[in-house]
Amino acid sequence: MKPHPDAELLKHLFPSIRRYQELAAKHGIPDIFQDNGGKILQVCLILGLTVLPSREGNDARDQHGNEYELKTVNLSRTSQFTTHHHLNPVIIVKYRLVSWIFATYEGIELREIYRLTPAKMSYWFERWERKWHADGGKDINNPKVPLAYVQTHGELLHSAVGQPFEKSLND
Amino acid sequence: MKPHPDAELLKHLFPSIRRYQELAAKHGIPDIFQDNGGKILQVCLILGLTVLPSREGNDARDQHGNEYELKTVNLSRTSQFTTHHHLNPVIIVKYRLVSWIFATYEGIELREIYRLTPAKMSYWFERWERKWHADGGKDINNPKVPLAYVQTHGELLHSAVGQPFEKSLND
Repeated sequence: MKPHPDAELLKHLFPSIRRYQELAAKHGIPDIFQDNGGKILQVCLILGLTVLPSREGNDARDQHGNEYELKTVNLSRTSQFTTHHHLNPVIIVKYRLVSWIFATYEGIELREIYRLTPAKMSYWFERWERKWHADGGKDINNPKVPLAYVQTHGELLHSAVGQPFEKSLND
Repeated sequence: MKPHPDAELLKHLFPSIRRYQELAAKHGIPDIFQDNGGKILQVCLILGLTVLPSREGNDARDQHGNEYELKTVNLSRTSQFTTHHHLNPVIIVKYRLVSWIFATYEGIELREIYRLTPAKMSYWFERWERKWHADGGKDINNPKVPLAYVQTHGELLHSAVGQPFEKSLND
């Protein structure tokens, strides 16, 4: 088995990848190549949020101690945000306590970041609770929040549509 | 919400990340930040393998048309390779047809790559089949292959232990 010629390019790029991972590790993300680690880092740095360890309840916290659920979507694949593989009322109770951050991507390119308050999310919480009861208490497998809902009801925190996010950051 | 000062460093590093993603996309990996995309790219380029679309059966193919199952483990978290969330005899039939590539990482740093032939893997296939039948035909949730087995029975294809992988590539 013989390396592909592009292995040389990868070799050349890898020191920057390593520095990105070092930055991620500093902010509590152990692996940029898993679970959207590289995107979570970006969203949290742009918003000034602290990443919370995955075993704790929520995903991130701001400097005032407010916690957030954080969701990303890759618009090249789908226009719906996924939530939780085993959603039930216990998790919904937790969801009702925090604002939600929704970040849209095309591939690895950030496009928009929205915030939705628990009040704005309650439409979904109620719907999911009704479904859970109607199904006799069966966990819901990954219910979705459509992008259109997020764009209509959310507050736009950041936009990099049509340009690299680096250009938008200081605008 | 105000950016963290480190957002500037991220901004500075991002063009290299983008080039890494462009390289990944060229080799069939749509998102380096998901499903170990950035690691799969590295392993496949080092071994000269072609990444197969995830809907097809196996993970990669060499220039002779041989296909491979490809597994990675992050040794900072665990020393066992995971396999499949719903393993059953149909999948095991597929597993028996190909060699397996096992790559070990510490965080995002590649350490070793091993190859195991189907014959060397058959100990596990038989064990999983017995378990599946003993459990009355219930899919097995992600059975593991321990690193020690891989190191004992596998062929070492690449080693970067104690050094950045870039240094090891031309040795």
